[in-house]
Amino acid sequence: MTAFSANDHSFMQRALRLAALGVNTTSPNPRVGCVIVQGDEVVGEGWHRRAGEPHAEVHALAEAGARARGATAYVTLEPCSHHGRTPPCADALVRAGVSRVVAAMVDPFPEVAGRGLEKLHAAGITVESGLLADEAARLNKGFISRVSRGRPWVTLKAGASVDGRTALANGLSQWITSPEARLDVQRLRARSCAVLTGSGTVLADDPRLTVREFGTSRQPMRVVLDSALTTSPQAAIYRADAPTFLATACTDPSRHAPYLVQGVEVLALPGADGRVDLDALLSALAARGVGELMVEAGATLNGALLSAGLVDEIILYMAPMLLGADARGLFALPALQSLDDKVELSFKEVDRVGPDLRLSLTVGQRGRG
Amino acid sequence: MTAFSANDHSFMQRALRLAALGVNTTSPNPRVGCVIVQGDEVVGEGWHRRAGEPHAEVHALAEAGARARGATAYVTLEPCSHHGRTPPCADALVRAGVSRVVAAMVDPFPEVAGRGLEKLHAAGITVESGLLADEAARLNKGFISRVSRGRPWVTLKAGASVDGRTALANGLSQWITSPEARLDVQRLRARSCAVLTGSGTVLADDPRLTVREFGTSRQPMRVVLDSALTTSPQAAIYRADAPTFLATACTDPSRHAPYLVQGVEVLALPGADGRVDLDALLSALAARGVGELMVEAGATLNGALLSAGLVDEIILYMAPMLLGADARGLFALPALQSLDDKVELSFKEVDRVGPDLRLSLTVGQRGRG
Repeated sequence: MTAFSANDHSFMQRALRLAALGVNTTSPNPRVGCVIVQGDEVVGEGWHRRAGEPHAEVHALAEAGARARGATAYVTLEPCSHHGRTPPCADALVRAGVSRVVAAMVDPFPEVAGRGLEKLHAAGITVESGLLADEAARLNKGFISRVSRGRPWVTLKAGASVDGRTALANGLSQWITSPEARLDVQRLRARSCAVLTGSGTVLADDPRLTVREFGTSRQPMRVVLDSALTTSPQAAIYRADAPTFLATACTDPSRHAPYLVQGVEVLALPGADGRVDLDALLSALAARGVGELMVEAGATLNGALLSAGLVDEIILYMAPMLLGADARGLFALPALQSLDDKVELSFKEVDRVGPDLRLSLTVGQRGRG
Repeated sequence: MTAFSANDHSFMQRALRLAALGVNTTSPNPRVGCVIVQGDEVVGEGWHRRAGEPHAEVHALAEAGARARGATAYVTLEPCSHHGRTPPCADALVRAGVSRVVAAMVDPFPEVAGRGLEKLHAAGITVESGLLADEAARLNKGFISRVSRGRPWVTLKAGASVDGRTALANGLSQWITSPEARLDVQRLRARSCAVLTGSGTVLADDPRLTVREFGTSRQPMRVVLDSALTTSPQAAIYRADAPTFLATACTDPSRHAPYLVQGVEVLALPGADGRVDLDALLSALAARGVGELMVEAGATLNGALLSAGLVDEIILYMAPMLLGADARGLFALPALQSLDDKVELSFKEVDRVGPDLRLSLTVGQRGRG
């Protein structure tokens, strides 16, 4: 393990902050930042803005110009070694004559996966990796999940009262959480590659699931899971001006047609019991470039994803109120026979969002579930 | 409003810390601390330990001796002016020759209620009040509630999963929260004047509701609400060596006898529908000196107290797990027809207790409930 200096940490922190500027726009690419340092002076910096545009290193090298020679380049992800939509950044760093490259982490993308660092090393450049690796991995949890697990990083968003209720028994649910929490939800949507919901939510709330509270140059793909095609092709989610993907268990092409004419991509993924195969759905989304998937659904789909062990993280907005034991619950899970069958979580972050709490929880393995 | 100096704040903080040393022992008296300062030097300090023993001022004056003359006395509660089990502290301060008395707050106890400060003022002492009044009031929320509202400050304690469940549908509930949370519950018990539970909890768990995890010189009174006298007189709560109070709607003395012979105080407080009158119960407890009442009960009694607007504060230990919508809920409230009928809360403090969260919530008024 290389011992990194305080300066190294500070410059990589800066590169990570630059990378984070692309949080809402780089999908399906990772967020990457680069800082080029000559002595103690930053001579160039850049971040990747969106797919098809130059990588972070290219921006930083252009700003540094001749001062890149003999400099150290800090990059939040291993420089690419392959010809994608842009030429390999490893080659550009070699050409510019940098003497040292510090990467926060190796790129898990199979076409890179260490080859970028090897190429730099072979060119006589000092190569180090692993500085602030956890922070870098967190920033690209979606990209990493997609390329290493073949499925998105799944973040389930929910809103509930302190006693875990989402709506009254009669279905009334509007405005349980605060305007501040709803704005925060739009922020989560904006960074997601896609937002998944179920037919029950479409039928009950007719949501658009787009980002509307602030400007964004990229809307997340919306994904509707509608096993039996019970949603109306006229639903708002199929008409909003953002790409929509419809997953169904129905294999009858004539029933797909009304959605297809709305410009919706329809994919039949029949699983057991006439329901959509959730594993197949996540694979299909990953194949379409979905790294961060946000779930905004009801108790049924939430429960199905949790029971299948497919949720990585839960963001729960908790409103300061009680609705009572007759009100509707958060997660429909099969009745547990033993506490060993519970879904294990851990509290990662707790924040106040207006009058509400936002609990960020990671999901552990289920006991024997 | 007097402008207090930084020194004033600092000495009153010290007096409050001294007062808090009595948190588990002064019941039914308030927790009170006193610091006597000559110039910038603390020359005496004291705190009230338990009812019948000397008040904080007496300890502090004894330590200060002759150096109390011309000094400032900081007290967290107005010095008493009446002859209770001990002589009036206001007289002692006058005799000692202090020149200034700063009180955090006026004593709401009707036999004091400003008369202590008046007596000091009449003796030519400079008297000021209201320094760190909120902190002082929080420390004695139980005492203040008892003497000003005629009922205890009611803190409802509950433990639940993130989805608001206390037990599986089959009743299994042991060890949802962590050992750290359970120790914290004992800490809450130790400071409470009394702990209230319901017949359902006694029948299901046979708890003792005593403080066992650490030494304490005073056990809280235990209060069982058993409207129909369904609990066994042999239940652990009636046998443990701490005072127990049984509230029932049953007025038949022959049915009280089996509990009376266990040394339990039995009081019939019949209300509507064959249930105990909750307002009458709280009045009866206040009359017995109960200031801080902790509720450790099930969904039914919790719901009844919440619905009646009798809960001041909720301490919810939230365990990082999901139990699913079939599992048992936290609070049995009447089915709400409108979100306006919800119980409104606000998040006061959020702390981590081992792997769990502890949410401290204050209860607002119910909408139209």
